[in-house]
Amino acid sequence: MTQPLDFQSIIFTLQKFWADQGCLIWQPYYSQVGAGTYNPATFLRVLGPEPWNVGYVEPSVRADDGRYGENPNRLQQHYQFQVILKPDPGNPQELYLKSLEALGIDSRQHDIRFVEDNWESPALGAWGLGWEVWLDGQEITQFTYFQQSGGIQLDPVSVEITYGLERIAMPLQRVRHFKDIRWNAEHNYGDMNMQGEQEHSRYYFDVADVERSRQLYSLYEQEANLALEKGLVLPAYDYLLKCSQTFNVLDTRGVIGVTERQALFSRMREVAHRVSEQYLEQRQRQEYPWMKDDTLSSLVGASVRRRKASEDMPTRPVLFTTPQEFLFEIGTEELPASDLQSALAQLKERLPAVLDDLRLPHDEVIILGTPRRLVASVANLAARQADRTQLVKGPQASRAFDAMGLPTKAAEGFAKSRGIDVKALEVREIDGGKYAAAEVTESGRPAVEVLSEALPKLIAAIKFDKPMRWNSSNVYFSRPIRWLLALFGGRVVPFEYAGVQSGAVTRGLRFLDPAEIEVKTSQEYFTALAAQGILLDPEIRRHSIADQVIRLAIEAGGSDKLDETLLDEVNQLVEAPTALRGAFEESHLRLPPEVLISVMKKHQRYFPAQTPDGRLLPVFIAVRNGDDQYLDIVTDGNEQVIRARYADAAFFIDQDLHHKLEDFLPRLGTLIFQTKLGSMLDKSRRIERLVEPLSPEVGVQDMDTVRRAAHLCKADLVTHMVVEMTSLQGLMGRYYALYSGETEAVAQAIYEHYLPRFAGDDNPRSPAALVIGLADRLDSLAGLFAAGLAPTGTRDPFAQRRTALGLVQALTAWDLDFDVRQGLALASEGLPVPSTPEIQKACLEFIAGRLRSVLVEQENYRYDVVDAVLAAQQHNPAGAVRAVKQLAPRVTQPDWPTILPAYARCVRITRDQAQQFPLDPNALVEPAEKELCQALLKVEATPRRPGSMEDFLNAFLPIIPAISRFFEEVLVMVDDPALRANRLGLLQRIALLPKGVADFSFLEGF
Amino acid sequence: MTQPLDFQSIIFTLQKFWADQGCLIWQPYYSQVGAGTYNPATFLRVLGPEPWNVGYVEPSVRADDGRYGENPNRLQQHYQFQVILKPDPGNPQELYLKSLEALGIDSRQHDIRFVEDNWESPALGAWGLGWEVWLDGQEITQFTYFQQSGGIQLDPVSVEITYGLERIAMPLQRVRHFKDIRWNAEHNYGDMNMQGEQEHSRYYFDVADVERSRQLYSLYEQEANLALEKGLVLPAYDYLLKCSQTFNVLDTRGVIGVTERQALFSRMREVAHRVSEQYLEQRQRQEYPWMKDDTLSSLVGASVRRRKASEDMPTRPVLFTTPQEFLFEIGTEELPASDLQSALAQLKERLPAVLDDLRLPHDEVIILGTPRRLVASVANLAARQADRTQLVKGPQASRAFDAMGLPTKAAEGFAKSRGIDVKALEVREIDGGKYAAAEVTESGRPAVEVLSEALPKLIAAIKFDKPMRWNSSNVYFSRPIRWLLALFGGRVVPFEYAGVQSGAVTRGLRFLDPAEIEVKTSQEYFTALAAQGILLDPEIRRHSIADQVIRLAIEAGGSDKLDETLLDEVNQLVEAPTALRGAFEESHLRLPPEVLISVMKKHQRYFPAQTPDGRLLPVFIAVRNGDDQYLDIVTDGNEQVIRARYADAAFFIDQDLHHKLEDFLPRLGTLIFQTKLGSMLDKSRRIERLVEPLSPEVGVQDMDTVRRAAHLCKADLVTHMVVEMTSLQGLMGRYYALYSGETEAVAQAIYEHYLPRFAGDDNPRSPAALVIGLADRLDSLAGLFAAGLAPTGTRDPFAQRRTALGLVQALTAWDLDFDVRQGLALASEGLPVPSTPEIQKACLEFIAGRLRSVLVEQENYRYDVVDAVLAAQQHNPAGAVRAVKQLAPRVTQPDWPTILPAYARCVRITRDQAQQFPLDPNALVEPAEKELCQALLKVEATPRRPGSMEDFLNAFLPIIPAISRFFEEVLVMVDDPALRANRLGLLQRIALLPKGVADFSFLEGF
Repeated sequence: MTQPLDFQSIIFTLQKFWADQGCLIWQPYYSQVGAGTYNPATFLRVLGPEPWNVGYVEPSVRADDGRYGENPNRLQQHYQFQVILKPDPGNPQELYLKSLEALGIDSRQHDIRFVEDNWESPALGAWGLGWEVWLDGQEITQFTYFQQSGGIQLDPVSVEITYGLERIAMPLQRVRHFKDIRWNAEHNYGDMNMQGEQEHSRYYFDVADVERSRQLYSLYEQEANLALEKGLVLPAYDYLLKCSQTFNVLDTRGVIGVTERQALFSRMREVAHRVSEQYLEQRQRQEYPWMKDDTLSSLVGASVRRRKASEDMPTRPVLFTTPQEFLFEIGTEELPASDLQSALAQLKERLPAVLDDLRLPHDEVIILGTPRRLVASVANLAARQADRTQLVKGPQASRAFDAMGLPTKAAEGFAKSRGIDVKALEVREIDGGKYAAAEVTESGRPAVEVLSEALPKLIAAIKFDKPMRWNSSNVYFSRPIRWLLALFGGRVVPFEYAGVQSGAVTRGLRFLDPAEIEVKTSQEYFTALAAQGILLDPEIRRHSIADQVIRLAIEAGGSDKLDETLLDEVNQLVEAPTALRGAFEESHLRLPPEVLISVMKKHQRYFPAQTPDGRLLPVFIAVRNGDDQYLDIVTDGNEQVIRARYADAAFFIDQDLHHKLEDFLPRLGTLIFQTKLGSMLDKSRRIERLVEPLSPEVGVQDMDTVRRAAHLCKADLVTHMVVEMTSLQGLMGRYYALYSGETEAVAQAIYEHYLPRFAGDDNPRSPAALVIGLADRLDSLAGLFAAGLAPTGTRDPFAQRRTALGLVQALTAWDLDFDVRQGLALASEGLPVPSTPEIQKACLEFIAGRLRSVLVEQENYRYDVVDAVLAAQQHNPAGAVRAVKQLAPRVTQPDWPTILPAYARCVRITRDQAQQFPLDPNALVEPAEKELCQALLKVEATPRRPGSMEDFLNAFLPIIPAISRFFEEVLVMVDDPALRANRLGLLQRIALLPKGVADFSFLEGF
Repeated sequence: MTQPLDFQSIIFTLQKFWADQGCLIWQPYYSQVGAGTYNPATFLRVLGPEPWNVGYVEPSVRADDGRYGENPNRLQQHYQFQVILKPDPGNPQELYLKSLEALGIDSRQHDIRFVEDNWESPALGAWGLGWEVWLDGQEITQFTYFQQSGGIQLDPVSVEITYGLERIAMPLQRVRHFKDIRWNAEHNYGDMNMQGEQEHSRYYFDVADVERSRQLYSLYEQEANLALEKGLVLPAYDYLLKCSQTFNVLDTRGVIGVTERQALFSRMREVAHRVSEQYLEQRQRQEYPWMKDDTLSSLVGASVRRRKASEDMPTRPVLFTTPQEFLFEIGTEELPASDLQSALAQLKERLPAVLDDLRLPHDEVIILGTPRRLVASVANLAARQADRTQLVKGPQASRAFDAMGLPTKAAEGFAKSRGIDVKALEVREIDGGKYAAAEVTESGRPAVEVLSEALPKLIAAIKFDKPMRWNSSNVYFSRPIRWLLALFGGRVVPFEYAGVQSGAVTRGLRFLDPAEIEVKTSQEYFTALAAQGILLDPEIRRHSIADQVIRLAIEAGGSDKLDETLLDEVNQLVEAPTALRGAFEESHLRLPPEVLISVMKKHQRYFPAQTPDGRLLPVFIAVRNGDDQYLDIVTDGNEQVIRARYADAAFFIDQDLHHKLEDFLPRLGTLIFQTKLGSMLDKSRRIERLVEPLSPEVGVQDMDTVRRAAHLCKADLVTHMVVEMTSLQGLMGRYYALYSGETEAVAQAIYEHYLPRFAGDDNPRSPAALVIGLADRLDSLAGLFAAGLAPTGTRDPFAQRRTALGLVQALTAWDLDFDVRQGLALASEGLPVPSTPEIQKACLEFIAGRLRSVLVEQENYRYDVVDAVLAAQQHNPAGAVRAVKQLAPRVTQPDWPTILPAYARCVRITRDQAQQFPLDPNALVEPAEKELCQALLKVEATPRRPGSMEDFLNAFLPIIPAISRFFEEVLVMVDDPALRANRLGLLQRIALLPKGVADFSFLEGF
């Protein structure tokens, strides 16, 4: 084995490799950036239509990744090698994999994977779809199809490849820690950068002056805007980068609250957008100097040329006469798990329908797929469409035939236009009129012809939640389509989609030979892929994975229980699954198991192993894509990854455990919630005050727990572990609380006050957690509305929708009647900004809007039912839900069309009356009105629970016959004013009966 | 011819070249820096003893070099390739030249030169000695032996090689403008960077907000100090870099005055020093982890090994018996012109003396030299020293011989210690005593032996103004010594100096084959060098250059006048001179000829050509080092250089000419003179006020001119041309004034008020210029002293010495009596800070101190004469100089030893008297005292010009005989108090006679 490349040679090699591919080799930027993406050679050059291919090193600074040099692969500064290919050359994954080969990575010895990872920079208004590339579980590269930058849609899309050079060097050189990477013959990486890692980590985490950093941010921003005013794009961009880095420093110091973060992002995004717009304008004014006829979109050029060739020499398809097998494969770059699942489901539903529409009879349709291919196989598909006879309708008979019964000019014209012999026209009666018409028989066309037309549409009809574009065809798909196989009876069904021409060639498992396989039949196809270990059938694949994982788990002393969701996901990530078991240090088991499991599942898609009694074992089970060759190397690589991740978590938690949870409280003062609403400490104190009046409403018994938990509920936000992984908020709070000697109830309430965090999440189990959660959310909503920061249709930077939903979900789950109006009023009293009844009303309506959307869109209640109830009960979510549930079945019963109109008449006839008429039962004259009055008084006398729809309906429905009789027998609007007033008064009282329960005028049919 | 390298391949090639030399290849820094030197890989790594070899690209930002993309080779951002070799590998120039070859530069086709250029960064406290490397007149590389960094002496010294990549790419690719440099096959340099050049130029020159930039500077500095307090070296250094770049932006905006500049530099230097100290401490604490026995100082190791070898096997020198030729050559890297001149002079003086001391008779000694060699040739040098007989003096005779006359133990001991036979001792009378002594004859040693010992001392004795160290021998020389040739009778005189072993090998003209030439005789030596065109004799070389230059000038229509100073300099820059003539665009002749000529001479060492009537011609004459091969290429290269430089000047002047000179005045308000003393506009207004009372003193007639010129005198400081080349201040003021329609007198006064700028400079010719200059300097001195910023022994950041000297020189040149005390008092009235009489007195003494040093150190007057005069007249420099000139010859005349004591007696006898005694001539008794009184009264009655030494001496000297007689005949201190008092009164009157002229008690012999 030759000596592995040293670090500087890795860089040389990549420079040379990409230069040889025609990339310009560029230099790192002269400003601290978080990634190569921030270099203007990416950020600006991806804009606009000009082609651009570039590669460069970028020393990338990420303050919050600093680990004082202690973590094996996390650094405050790491080296990226960044490549931009614009437009997509058609084979960027293959080019990338070749570059790994050039570095000396033998793909057969490793598990190299493209794992869905979508990239977004909120500060730059940029995002793209793509993958992390994993080498034995380690992320070594980010591979992205850039969709937007600076808030501007990119056309063409750029391919962005970002190598993490340390992550590549470590396995290549077989070293365990970044410091041991050999840089050249003389020095290692630690020689060069260890001091920097230690010092900058200290600076970013412990030393940087917060006040000065804020001043710097502000000066940079002002200077960026000044430059923009003067039309100076690049200087403005430089200051934006400085803003971004200063933001990162502040963030690492832990002083940026959620809401301030959003505000700062939004300001940076605004600058990024203006920079991008002005840059594009410049290029446009310069008439896109890099546009050259011969270089524009090389790939598309190639495919265009190919298409032309096929037009010149159309390959006459063989016309079969008997049914044939049809095989269809959409070959893609690695699809995200959920997209694969969804695409398979869509194909399963649509393909048979499409074939039926095409009048192509067939036997079984089988849909299969892996991350790299969607496959349909149809047995015995008819070789031709069935013939079809249709009646073609022409002009009216009177216009089509003259008095003599001979066809007129109109008839001739029509016949000619439809290619029908005019003599075939006859008079037919259609929909009660008489028309000239003809029966036309259309012969079925060959299947291969209609499939050529239908298959592009079939692909186009597959929809994804987050689709992308990649080349100048600008079609959308989950990930780029790279080959299309379509065989009917072993012959190619010719068509083109997304710049790709259909053919008879499939591709095998990555890294196996041959990479491309020409097949003649379905049988050949399935045999070839099976030979490479690809399990095309998701069900079979899933079983295979489950079996392997469970076997390994049991071997390690674990139970046979599997996380089915994870299994589903892993199943969509591999073509040829082989499970392997790795181990990590027992010492990490002292960390909270939630943290360990969360890292395994979320970051690495590893299966944890737990003993039958739930104890976590120091092992993990990973599923590689490929066979069991070199499994030891792959396992070792994966072990390094999890070790580094756990070392990271341990590092944070150890730091945090130097203090009691309570000790963190003062630092909340430096974490800004929102400028006008103060720090998180201020907010935390408001919560403490607010739980006092709210607790009786919720029925809290144990005020000690409430008070203590409210006091501590936000303290974990400034712990290192939560600053690092915000998703652990609450969870770490519980853990640290127990460690600090708090009671189990307090610890649990700290955790649960965040519940529910998303639809379907657990709800708080204790009243203490419930009331703290209520107080927290009421404070946020009342506060942000009072601060003039209500969300708009498109912007919800403070996640107020989520907050309102949580409020509604919790109250509903507890089925707790609670007056949100009062809650908001109480919360408003404690705010540092003034509130008004109008503001609180707007806030209430916003909350009710969330409840409405849950009921209508998620629980599928009729919108009119929901609106009717909310019109009366929006202040009490639990009550409203109850009422909706009771009303909904009622309005679908057969008698409802008589009930509602009866009540509606009472309302409509009285609606325009300005005054409320008193009812004098004794002044009533007609029996029908007397009867109605009796019935009314009886309803009014029936005891009902406030807001209860059930009680209302039970009491009210019996009155309906009396109403009907009343309107049949009594004239309300008589001339006698007194009589009329009394009757109106009677109806007004009826109209008022549902008050506080619902407003039935919102119902359909009212 | 193969395709020249594109820009990215130039970088690859250098990376590969230096990696192959064992350099670590590093990355550009993530912060804007002015040069690769600022990258910590240089700035910090050069500190301390650890070896370090590195190469990297550095995009270098120099705001004030921005030219909006218009200048062909000046850019606000250019790319450097930086190499550090530590320790000196012994052949860094050769390595460097090989790297140029690797880039495809054929050294035979170009004029490649090492031109003295010493590098200094006042902000970093760093400096080094070395060269600019010129390629056909274009600076392409800075080559420096780093002597100090962060205020710390470097040991070992590092070699720093800084390539300017654009400057190399342009001639290589034969393009005329940086924008046309091909970056890769697809894009050129302009594609990549032109927009940046334009926008950043605008930003730096016109847009950057000054107030915000000052705030940024201050925040950075605070943060740097914070980091230092916490011991965080690298974060502190990052902020220092930010300070430096922000300083550059402010400077480019033209808002940094001279004094503020010094203050900011000093603050940055302080931080740089602390950073460096802390870095060194860290490395020391870590026990210099990069120190390895086998890598330490590879060169020195090699030379040590060589020396050992020669010790093991001493080559017995052939012992000649007859006189032989002696040839000695010190081979160096290119010596600075003045050092070469000085070294030759020293050798010429010392070598004969050394040979005489060594008792080595010889014929003619010839000293020759070029920038790369100092050569001595001695004809017929004796093969052995002459024998020498010496009397060796022993113990006193009485101790050496006993009563019997036999030698004692003492005598035996002495004889033994001197290796003399005790019998040889005899008694000799020496200096009046009797001693045991012996005549000892010492035989002469072979010449080669004594030369081996003497030559290292001879080299060490050559002294330079600014010597340097380069390797671990740590000897000082002008530039590194790389070979030593020493032949006596064709055999090597063996010795070692500075790690170099003497030998028989010389080196030829650079780039010619063979590079090394072994010679046996002087004849061979001179023949070999002559064959390569080297003119060893400076006189011959000078004639050759002069002839060639004049011939080319005349051909172009110029006169035969030559700038002799320039000729002297050029003569020291080449070994084999060939003159060439280039041309520049006629259009540049519209620029002020001073600017054009100054650029030619100072920057390029070109000879301008002027017609006999003084008109400048659009040509220049350069002198290359080498023959006339490829002279067209060399000429073309030089033309590109001068074009770029003139384009630069034209750019600035054109910009300035958009405005009248007066229009620049308001911007003076942004240029800070010194924080406490306000802006340059404030200063300019003070000058305007101060000329009013001063003008009558100077005898100004034309107040209009004075007022107008004073108003405008500083306006040019904020013009682009002067901001760019400060040395043109005043000169551009005159030019712009004329252009703005000011009178010739005003324009001239604006220029001349700066005169004299240095010793030997012109003096102001008009009273207007004189008075403005006085006002300017008085304001500066009075102001800075009042602000507490008087210079100290080692620190004179505001150049107050120069200011005071200018004041003194101007007054002296005009021979103008002027009371500086009054001038300072007037100036002090207008200051924004309070002054006191004490402060003004200190200031006056500081000025007088400068006058004293001019008179003593430059004009070689006796210090006692100067002190005597200054004690009485320091407030009036012109008067003092006059008095010194008159007194100086007098004190060397034979009668002076009688004159001075006579006067001195008068002074001494009265000096301790507390009171002044009245003189009553009538109460005198003795004739001698009566005579003296008569003489005194006559002297007192003689009219004298104030302060005039001549008048004083003429009047006073006749009194001397009377004084002498008085003291011979009269007793002063008689008992009679009245008589005594009267006599003391008489003497007191005499003592007072020189008052206001001199204080003779300062004279020697007083």
